[in-house]
Amino acid sequence: MTVELISVGTEILLGNIVNTNAAWLSGQCAALGLACYYQSVVGDNAQRLREALKTALERSDAVILSGGLGPTTDDLTKETAAEAMGMPLVEDPRSLERIEEYFRVRGLEMTDNNKKQALVPAGAVVLDNDNGTAPGLILEKDGKRAILLPGPPNELIPMFEERVRPYLQRLEPGILYSRTVKICGIGESRAAAMVQDLIDTQTNPTIAPYAKTGEVHLRVTARAEREKEAKNLVKTVVKELEKRFGQDVYTTKEEVTLEQAVVELLLKRKMTVCTIESCTGGMLASRLINVPGVSETFRAGYITYSNRAKQKVAGVKKKTLEKYGAVSPQTAEEMARGAAKAAHADATVSVTGIAGPDGGSREKPVGLVYIGCHVGDRTVVQEYRFVGNRGKIRESAVSAALTLLRRCILTAEPAQ
Amino acid sequence: MTVELISVGTEILLGNIVNTNAAWLSGQCAALGLACYYQSVVGDNAQRLREALKTALERSDAVILSGGLGPTTDDLTKETAAEAMGMPLVEDPRSLERIEEYFRVRGLEMTDNNKKQALVPAGAVVLDNDNGTAPGLILEKDGKRAILLPGPPNELIPMFEERVRPYLQRLEPGILYSRTVKICGIGESRAAAMVQDLIDTQTNPTIAPYAKTGEVHLRVTARAEREKEAKNLVKTVVKELEKRFGQDVYTTKEEVTLEQAVVELLLKRKMTVCTIESCTGGMLASRLINVPGVSETFRAGYITYSNRAKQKVAGVKKKTLEKYGAVSPQTAEEMARGAAKAAHADATVSVTGIAGPDGGSREKPVGLVYIGCHVGDRTVVQEYRFVGNRGKIRESAVSAALTLLRRCILTAEPAQ
Repeated sequence: MTVELISVGTEILLGNIVNTNAAWLSGQCAALGLACYYQSVVGDNAQRLREALKTALERSDAVILSGGLGPTTDDLTKETAAEAMGMPLVEDPRSLERIEEYFRVRGLEMTDNNKKQALVPAGAVVLDNDNGTAPGLILEKDGKRAILLPGPPNELIPMFEERVRPYLQRLEPGILYSRTVKICGIGESRAAAMVQDLIDTQTNPTIAPYAKTGEVHLRVTARAEREKEAKNLVKTVVKELEKRFGQDVYTTKEEVTLEQAVVELLLKRKMTVCTIESCTGGMLASRLINVPGVSETFRAGYITYSNRAKQKVAGVKKKTLEKYGAVSPQTAEEMARGAAKAAHADATVSVTGIAGPDGGSREKPVGLVYIGCHVGDRTVVQEYRFVGNRGKIRESAVSAALTLLRRCILTAEPAQ
Repeated sequence: MTVELISVGTEILLGNIVNTNAAWLSGQCAALGLACYYQSVVGDNAQRLREALKTALERSDAVILSGGLGPTTDDLTKETAAEAMGMPLVEDPRSLERIEEYFRVRGLEMTDNNKKQALVPAGAVVLDNDNGTAPGLILEKDGKRAILLPGPPNELIPMFEERVRPYLQRLEPGILYSRTVKICGIGESRAAAMVQDLIDTQTNPTIAPYAKTGEVHLRVTARAEREKEAKNLVKTVVKELEKRFGQDVYTTKEEVTLEQAVVELLLKRKMTVCTIESCTGGMLASRLINVPGVSETFRAGYITYSNRAKQKVAGVKKKTLEKYGAVSPQTAEEMARGAAKAAHADATVSVTGIAGPDGGSREKPVGLVYIGCHVGDRTVVQEYRFVGNRGKIRESAVSAALTLLRRCILTAEPAQ
């Protein structure tokens, strides 16, 4: 069964609000195994809504409309949908009673335009609204369905969960199940090339790659009659992806971030960590510290943006700074070793680079970054060349630092 | 002129990501005075994209497509748009060179699928992508326009700002001129109440409030035949807003961020700065360090997440930690004073709080944050109670820290 979404509201078209309803409803439909091929947004305009609904009803089995059910004159969804489905509006005594009750309980006066909310298309299923005045509606005709939901998320979500989901479940048996394989340290095109044969030949499950800064996520989605079957289909492909990408897969759990995977690894190995940052200036530490429970492992972080701070905090030698410069493998190494010593940390990662827009030279261009990683008594330094603006270069450096730290821990001898 | 948006990406239809691009682009179009009546979303499917684009080109003057410009086989936007506009694809030597350069600089191997990204519809305007490999495109035919932008926001936003906005501005005669009055340290509803009379009565210029974490932006927009006229209309309202909000206005320049205003203030006063962070863990320093030229003023940053680090780095007394706890005004004060001394900085800001989700108690709930600010020989400590998840609480704390630092500098005696 195919479903599509129409969000009604001029405030979305003006960019005043982000259409989180559409994302949430799409996710719900996907989880129900419903194919959703279109989302659209129209303003509070009867003619354009009529056209959009007509198009949607032609190409999809069900249309979920959200918004435009309120009491004001620019709320037109119900009237338009009733007209499109050829169902006249009649007063629903139960809805009228509920609306009157809503105002009575709150000690508010009910205005005439609220009565409008008790009009329903003849033959429609009325969905009670426990969190507002506008009831939801399901209109069915000739095998097509229009499902009307109120726009406020705190009304829409419970109404969907309590009434619409069970309704849709009855219409569409079968399950869509997804898992995401998250990879760090490999570019999108290389990762895609490594699985192109699978992408080209797989239809169930499908594999879809998504690029994030310094990461690639491969989403594996299967459709089956039963959950167990869908899970098994996905599992086989996830295993194959894990085989191909090996240690570069940092998680196969939807909710786990790279920094979380790093913190979990540190906790598992009972290692403490310390950061020392120049161009990333706290961004690396900040990502680690966003992981709840990091206090068990995070020793200290230093932001040594100036040469003076590098010398004072990490004991980087003046000679090193003079001879090789602040952005050099030598400085990255001394920063990592010095900070490890100062903080008594088992693992230390250092970042020094040129984030721009100024400060670059032909020899050392903007985007040049050295990352040092000191684990046990081994120090690894890697050179990177990132592009983009200052923010993008810093973000890329942070991802690379987390990736290098993770690799160094993985290749270190586990503590006995 | 009418414009509409098509977002391309199965991940949006599956509800994996929220369509923030559409909200941002809609806001930009509204600010340019372009009427946007439709937004739609289609997946990575050539046929459906073709139909959506055809419908859009029939009813609107310009269509902005985002997403689907990447190197993988499911990226189809360019091919589909070229076909719809009847423009064959040809290799663009300049784009090919840029993509080759992109890979060379990174020392990465360029795969064949990346070459695909250098194909452009014959006669299209190519928009360089400084933050990724896929160039944007503008296709014009028979008075209709298709504008193709990459999906990642960090590529889409700069490309729109640098190339698409000026292009659209030239198409729409008459002038829409905007300025933004940026306010820190006042909540959205209080700020809105302070200007409600203006919002209610003004039609040209209009005043639109936007809430950001810890900030409110009031966007003043005037429409006129000539730029000078529009600018004058805006100027009068901006002056009135400055009068009402006084020192809480940190800038009236579009591109200036709060951290930039703080750095500029520090530079103007020839003051050096230092940060010491617990729950924000580098996020405050990171925001300051994102400002180009900060090296002149940023002395050092310390991340003292553990009590031990607070004692060692800033000399916070063990007795203070035991008696009042790490999250207390006393600790915030000692952190600020101690870090100022360690870094020899003129201004120091400290943050200590409970970001959650664990670690809260009845007396000290999640969201409780103390911020200390030491300028000259005066130390100010303020208590805050933020709501939201861990990330949101940390962000709120960073905004509050920048706001407090700014106020303390403004009220300090200027150096003679």
